[in-house]
Amino acid sequence: MKNKKLNIAIIGLGNIGSYLFKYLKKNKKILSKKNNCIPNILFVSAKNKSKKRGFNINKQQWLNNYLDATKIKEVDLIIELIGGAEGAAKKLVFNALKNKKHVVTANKALIAKYGNQLSKIAEKNKVNLEFEASVCGGVPIIRSLKEGLIANKINRIFGIFNGTSNYILSSMDKKNKTFNEVLNEAKKLGYAESNPSADISGEDVSAKLKILTSLCFNSFLNNNIHVEGIKHIDNEDIKNVRKLGYKIKLLGFSEIINNYIYQRVHPTLIKESSYVASIDGVLNAVIVDGDPVGKSVIQGEGAGPEATTSALVSDISSILRGNIKFPFSISDKERKKLKFRNITERYFSAYLRFEVLDKPGVLSNITNVFSKNYVSIKRLIQNPNKNKGSSSVIIITHDSKDKFLNKIIKIINKKSYVIEKPKLIRIDDN
Amino acid sequence: MKNKKLNIAIIGLGNIGSYLFKYLKKNKKILSKKNNCIPNILFVSAKNKSKKRGFNINKQQWLNNYLDATKIKEVDLIIELIGGAEGAAKKLVFNALKNKKHVVTANKALIAKYGNQLSKIAEKNKVNLEFEASVCGGVPIIRSLKEGLIANKINRIFGIFNGTSNYILSSMDKKNKTFNEVLNEAKKLGYAESNPSADISGEDVSAKLKILTSLCFNSFLNNNIHVEGIKHIDNEDIKNVRKLGYKIKLLGFSEIINNYIYQRVHPTLIKESSYVASIDGVLNAVIVDGDPVGKSVIQGEGAGPEATTSALVSDISSILRGNIKFPFSISDKERKKLKFRNITERYFSAYLRFEVLDKPGVLSNITNVFSKNYVSIKRLIQNPNKNKGSSSVIIITHDSKDKFLNKIIKIINKKSYVIEKPKLIRIDDN
Repeated sequence: MKNKKLNIAIIGLGNIGSYLFKYLKKNKKILSKKNNCIPNILFVSAKNKSKKRGFNINKQQWLNNYLDATKIKEVDLIIELIGGAEGAAKKLVFNALKNKKHVVTANKALIAKYGNQLSKIAEKNKVNLEFEASVCGGVPIIRSLKEGLIANKINRIFGIFNGTSNYILSSMDKKNKTFNEVLNEAKKLGYAESNPSADISGEDVSAKLKILTSLCFNSFLNNNIHVEGIKHIDNEDIKNVRKLGYKIKLLGFSEIINNYIYQRVHPTLIKESSYVASIDGVLNAVIVDGDPVGKSVIQGEGAGPEATTSALVSDISSILRGNIKFPFSISDKERKKLKFRNITERYFSAYLRFEVLDKPGVLSNITNVFSKNYVSIKRLIQNPNKNKGSSSVIIITHDSKDKFLNKIIKIINKKSYVIEKPKLIRIDDN
Repeated sequence: MKNKKLNIAIIGLGNIGSYLFKYLKKNKKILSKKNNCIPNILFVSAKNKSKKRGFNINKQQWLNNYLDATKIKEVDLIIELIGGAEGAAKKLVFNALKNKKHVVTANKALIAKYGNQLSKIAEKNKVNLEFEASVCGGVPIIRSLKEGLIANKINRIFGIFNGTSNYILSSMDKKNKTFNEVLNEAKKLGYAESNPSADISGEDVSAKLKILTSLCFNSFLNNNIHVEGIKHIDNEDIKNVRKLGYKIKLLGFSEIINNYIYQRVHPTLIKESSYVASIDGVLNAVIVDGDPVGKSVIQGEGAGPEATTSALVSDISSILRGNIKFPFSISDKERKKLKFRNITERYFSAYLRFEVLDKPGVLSNITNVFSKNYVSIKRLIQNPNKNKGSSSVIIITHDSKDKFLNKIIKIINKKSYVIEKPKLIRIDDN
C-alpha cells in the first residue's frame, strides 16, 4: 500500500500546466496521504523547451516528442493541457487512451467534439478519462453530477458558464458603459482574452453545455444546440429590462420536456430578485434541478490557473484512489439515444424591441403581425424619441412558440417603418 | 463484473428510511448500471413492525433484532437511520464497523460525538463509514470536500446549516412578526419540529460544524466550540440592523487564524448585499474559502426525506463502486492535533444594544465603559422611546477582542439605568 504510485506526464506548460506542475510538486505528500498513492511527475513536454518558466525541470523529465508519453510503458496518466479540438491535443488523447493510459484534460472543445468516441475507448481499455476542468473551472460540477448528486433524475441544468461574457454584461449594467468600452476594459484586466470571440459568441458555453447535457441525461453528446452570443445586446436593452424588473445574462440551458432534450445558449431575461441575477463579474454558477433533491446551486471561480488546477487535481486524486468508472457516468452501451429537439418548437415568453418611425399606423401594424402569428402580447411600452422622430416599441409576450417569435422579427424587419434590426431576447421565469 | 452485488440492511424506517427503501427499490437498475454493482436490500428493521408504512416488506426481509444485521455474514452495508448520539444508533454503528460492515448514516449527533473512534475502527477494518446526509441534507458538501475540492487548503468554511432557524429569522424580517409567532407558523408548515430546541439553540449547527471542521482541516473532532442560538433576537434588532445595511443570520463558522482553529455558531450581522444574506427560508448554503480555488458556494435543500435520500444514495453509490477511503479524508494517524482556541481571544466588530433610562450621564457612562475596556466605537445611535421614558443605545464597534465585548455587556448589565438585558451580536464583514 505504502509504495503505490502513479506516474504522470504533463503535456502543455502554459499558465495552467505550469501552475499544476508546481502545485503537484508542493503537494505531493498531502495528496499521497489522502489518496493512498503517490502522484509522481515522470515527464513533461511542451512546444518550447527553452522558454523561461520560473521553475526547474530535470533533463530526464523533458520529452522532446510529446507523443512518446503515450508509448512509454511506465506512464500511467497523461494530463493534456495543449487545448483545441484538433491537432496535437486530439492526437495525444486518442493515442493515450488507445495505449491504456489514463487521461485528465481541461479541454472542453475536444471533449465536446470527440467525447463519445474517446469515452468508448477509455471504457474498452478500462482507463479513466476525466475532464472536470473542462467545465466551469473550480466549480466541482462534474464530480457533483457523477457522485454527490448521483441519486437524482435531472430535469434541468442551467447557469452562467462563461465569466468573460458575464463580466461584460454586468459591467455594462453597473457602469452604464457600451459593449466595446467594457470589452476593452475586460481585456486590460485580464478577464477577456485578446481574441474573445468564443466567449462572446456563446461557443465556449456551448461546448460546456454539451458535456453537462450528456452527464445529466445519460445521453450521447449532441450537436443540436441553439447558440446566440451577446454582441447585439446594447445599453438600451439593459435599461429597458431593468425597468421591467429583469437583468440580462448569457445563460446555457439543458432540459427535458416531454422526453425531448433542448440545448440552448442565449442572452436571457431573468428576474432581478433571482439567484442567477445576483451573480456578477467573472463567477460561474450552475443550477441543477433534480428529483429527489430539488434545486442545487454550485458557484465559484470559473477560470484561471488556480481554479483549473483545483479541478485537475480532483480528477487526478480520483485516479490515484483507483476510482475507475465511466467517463460519462454510465457505460457507453447504456447511454441513451435521446431525441434532441430544435428550440423552434419550444415555448418562450420573450422581450422584443422595435425601433420604428414615429408615424400613425405603425403600432397597429406591429400588433397585427403578432396576432396573425399566434403570439399574444402581455405588455407593450412605447417610448418616443423626439430628437430622432422615432419610437422604441418594447413588447413582452406570453408563452409563444419560438419559431413564431422569430418569424415576427423577420416580418417586421422588412417593414419600411423599421430603422434598426429588431431584438428578441427570451425570458426565463423558472 | 455483471453479478457483483452489495447486500444492504436498512435500520430505521421513519420518514427517511421509508423514502430511501422505496427509492432503492425503484432505482436499483440505474444505480447498478452507474456503479457497476447491484444495491440489494437484504434486511430492514425498525422499532414497530406492525406500523403501516404504505409499502410491502417481505417477511424474510424483516429483522426482529436490528443488531442481527451486524452479525449476519451476508450483510455488506448497514444504513443507520435511527438517530441520536447514544442508545440503539450507537450500538448499531459501533458493532457494524467492528464486524467489518460498511456503514452509511444520516446521524450528525453520533458522528460529531463518536466520529473519532468510529473512523478509527472503520479504517482498521477497511470498511467505509460515510455520513454525507448528516450535514446539510441534499447539499453535497462532504463529497465536495473529500473529492471535488480535494486540492485545496481550506482557510474558512461557513454558512447556513439549519433551515428551521433560517426560516424563522427570514420570516421575522419579511413579515415583521415576533419570534414566537413565526415559530408557531413554522411548526404548522412542517418547517420546525414539535420540539425545535436543537434547531433554535444552535446545537444542530454545532454538530454539523464539528464534522465540517474535521474534514476541512484534517483535524480531529473537537468540542471547543462557541454556540449561541437565536432565541434572544427580537424584531427591534432586525429593524435596527436593516437600517445599518445588515441582516441577521444564524451562521456556523470554522476558520484557521494564526494556526489556531476557531469554531463558532451564533447569530451574525452580514451585509444585506452579501450572498449569504440572500438565502432565505429553509435552504442551506455552505461557503468554502480554499487555496487555490478561491471561494466556492454550494446551496440546496437542507432537510426532508428527498434531500436526505439524495445524500444517502451518493454514499451508497460510492461504496458500490468500491471507492474505499478514509471517513475523514485522511488516515487516523495523519489527522492533525491542531489547537482549537476559544473565541474570547478572537477579534470581532459587533453590534451592541442597550435599553436604558433616558437620563443625563447615561451615555457618557456607557462610552466610558467601552473605552476602559479597549473597545472603540465606530458608530453610535440613540433612539429615544418617549412613551417609556427610555432610550435604545445602539453601538457598532471596531474590531475588538471578544472577551472585552462580553465584559462590557456584563458591566453595563449591572448598572441601575439598564432596563433590559443588553445585546451583543457579532458582525462578519468578510
